[in-house]
Amino acid sequence: MLEIISEHACYGGVQRFYRHDAREIGLPMRFSVFIPPQAAHGKVPALFYLAGLTCTEETFMIKAGAQRVAAELGLMLIAPDTSPRGANVEGESESWDFGVGAGFYLDATEPEWSKHYRMYSYLHELRELVVQQLPVDAQRIGIFGHSMGGHGALTMALKRPDVFRSVSAFAPIAAPSQCPWGQKAFHGYLGGEPAAWAQYDASLLMAQLKTPFPAGILIDQGLGDKFLAEQLYPEAFEAACATAAQPLTLRRHERYDHGYYFIQTFVEDHLRFHARNLTA
Amino acid sequence: MLEIISEHACYGGVQRFYRHDAREIGLPMRFSVFIPPQAAHGKVPALFYLAGLTCTEETFMIKAGAQRVAAELGLMLIAPDTSPRGANVEGESESWDFGVGAGFYLDATEPEWSKHYRMYSYLHELRELVVQQLPVDAQRIGIFGHSMGGHGALTMALKRPDVFRSVSAFAPIAAPSQCPWGQKAFHGYLGGEPAAWAQYDASLLMAQLKTPFPAGILIDQGLGDKFLAEQLYPEAFEAACATAAQPLTLRRHERYDHGYYFIQTFVEDHLRFHARNLTA
Repeated sequence: MLEIISEHACYGGVQRFYRHDAREIGLPMRFSVFIPPQAAHGKVPALFYLAGLTCTEETFMIKAGAQRVAAELGLMLIAPDTSPRGANVEGESESWDFGVGAGFYLDATEPEWSKHYRMYSYLHELRELVVQQLPVDAQRIGIFGHSMGGHGALTMALKRPDVFRSVSAFAPIAAPSQCPWGQKAFHGYLGGEPAAWAQYDASLLMAQLKTPFPAGILIDQGLGDKFLAEQLYPEAFEAACATAAQPLTLRRHERYDHGYYFIQTFVEDHLRFHARNLTA
Repeated sequence: MLEIISEHACYGGVQRFYRHDAREIGLPMRFSVFIPPQAAHGKVPALFYLAGLTCTEETFMIKAGAQRVAAELGLMLIAPDTSPRGANVEGESESWDFGVGAGFYLDATEPEWSKHYRMYSYLHELRELVVQQLPVDAQRIGIFGHSMGGHGALTMALKRPDVFRSVSAFAPIAAPSQCPWGQKAFHGYLGGEPAAWAQYDASLLMAQLKTPFPAGILIDQGLGDKFLAEQLYPEAFEAACATAAQPLTLRRHERYDHGYYFIQTFVEDHLRFHARNLTA
């Protein structure tokens, strides 16, 4: 069911890469897991990480330097791929911001995409799978992500706060209905009707949130990020949090850009934030 | 003279990628530098990192998670590329363990390679360049590396202990004259005469060392490393250290393999080892 592609000792735990037949995608999918040493003694809290455009299940694990703190805190880290691979939809590899590597963590409804591009439902399938197969405490699961994956983390948590009890993001696409990346993806996967887009727009979802996340939401944003003005819109999400009375810590960092040198600098803060929320 | 290709804020310092015309190579070369925040106030100690087969100047900086500790300790990190690029020697890209990405940190003498494949002399050129152009304390420079780069670090330091005052390695090719990787490289770059090989063999150099490194040498080796038995020979280096009365800390780690999940686990120990040696 779960095939181990490779495993690597890391900080006293183990970094694994898995492949499995994904029901929701209808194709094999890969994902990565860091299992901390504490998992040898019982179930541990888990943190899903959703990566950005063009990334894979490997990106976060090899670039973010998160395993050190995860091993200290006893957090499992789980990173899925960013889209189906091998769906062979016409045009799926023509651009880096749509199709392969750019699944946007939603269930497509447009006919050519709707069979395989079901990353939203796939993430729930994957969550159930790791709860069954790995020593994960199903009551202590958080989610975070970067850029497209920050959008994914925020929307996944806002749609299912019962299962994702803690959420944070690095430089998320925070109002995809308003930015070129989001509009291209939503048009392509969901069609031209903006009403269908709202269910995957973190700022629109937040504005309607009934019960705020009590521990707050953490977002880090670099002010040297070349995508900030055109694509990310953290201010829209910030305004929506104010509307919903959702506590938000939005940290703006001079000089930092959109890449993993930014992420590695602040990843420890995110892991400690989630560990606090999930063990409270 | 030094062209900045890109720079990224990281842990309060800056991660830079440079290009320059390398005199010893006769071609443009790239290298990377992490400049810690302390360098804003004066010269800092520096640590060269030499990467392994197939790697580039980016590998260590994006995969090892070393910047956090370097920023704490005030260490500059400098990583060169692993070979000339664009020399266009016939066959240089035919194998992954010789030619491009596999310069072995030596000066080739075989006619077809001797014009550009001069990584040994290039490293000294680069060292002089960074001392001139960046806030590096020339009296406090150390060197470390991985696999082929562990061979490089040990041989560079053993040949010039006056300039590399501290040395460590991850899974080094510790006796290249005896292993297939080393024999292929030495034959190709230096010819068939083993006498020419000895000057680049860490175990042979160590056996003849007159003045041991007083702070010792640190080597980490995974016992789950698939290259250990055939290619690495840490026991040969260990025996040579005993002969030369060189203090050596050779740590053998159950389960750990040859990759960067191994390196990231122990990189903090190496940075602290060098910082101690270079500030003593």
